[in-house]
Formats: sequence, structure tokens, C-alpha cells
Amino acid sequence: MNELTSDLVGYLAACMTTIAYIPQVWMTWKRKRAEGVSLSMYVILTSGVAMWLAYGVLMHSWPIIIANFITLMLAMFILGMKIVYK
Amino acid sequence: MNELTSDLVGYLAACMTTIAYIPQVWMTWKRKRAEGVSLSMYVILTSGVAMWLAYGVLMHSWPIIIANFITLMLAMFILGMKIVYK
Repeated sequence: MNELTSDLVGYLAACMTTIAYIPQVWMTWKRKRAEGVSLSMYVILTSGVAMWLAYGVLMHSWPIIIANFITLMLAMFILGMKIVYK
Repeated sequence: MNELTSDLVGYLAACMTTIAYIPQVWMTWKRKRAEGVSLSMYVILTSGVAMWLAYGVLMHSWPIIIANFITLMLAMFILGMKIVYK
């Protein structure tokens, strides 16, 4: 396995764990109900993704910054709906 | 900021985005209902985390391997409950 392969796997992994939240955003938004998603999960996840974003900034890594910025927006949106639809 | 600081931020981020799924596992398990969590989200997330695990193996990075192995177990458990409790 060369560096190109591992880079490709890494980028694919980052894309998938970012876009994964889109169906949850859409489902929760459509139903206007969020009782099945855990508040604690999204509080910890949002904080963790914010830390990943800080890590990307410290490492000057654009892939980490971009992926985690998008994930942060999505996770914050789910967290916001969880609070608003309570 | 030195390397130690960015390492610390990275480890903290990894811990948080891993443990975040525990409250969702617990909540879904306790309620025996998973209609509020998105099936598509957990299918994509599980695949993405498996890719991160492969990336960790390719990079010989134990922190990436360990964090994503635990996340994979938790995400698969939520996905399993989503399928079983349908």
C-alpha cells in the first residue's frame, strides 16, 4: 500500500463520517421531533468536533479543518433541533 | 502552541467523538425504540468509521485504530438496535 492509497482511504473516511449526519438532520427537520436522539450525545459530539477543528487549525491541516467545520455545522443543527423540539 | 498541545487537543477530540455515542447507545437500549435515529446516518457512519479504522491500520497509528475501533463497536450497536427495533 502506498501513500496515495492511505490518503484516498483517509479522505473517503472523512467524507463519509461528515455526510453521515445529513440524513439525521433531514429526518429530524422533517419530523419536527427529536425525542429519539440523545441530547448528551450531541453535546459531547459537538464539543469533540469543535476540538477536532481546533486540532486542524493547530496542525494547519485543511482537510481536517474543512471536514470538521461541516460536521460541526451539522451536529450543531441536530443539537439545536433537539433543544427547540423538546 | 507546541506539538504537545496539539497532541493533547487531538487526543481529547478523539476521546470525545468516541464517547459521544455511549449516551445514544444507552438511551436507545433503555427505550427499546430507535425510530428517531436515522438508519441512513448509521449505515454511512459505520462504513465511514470502518474506513477510518482501515486508515489507522495503513498509517500504523494506534490512537486512530483504538478510537475508531471503539466508535465502530458503538455505531454498529446503534445500527443493530435500529434494525432490530424496527
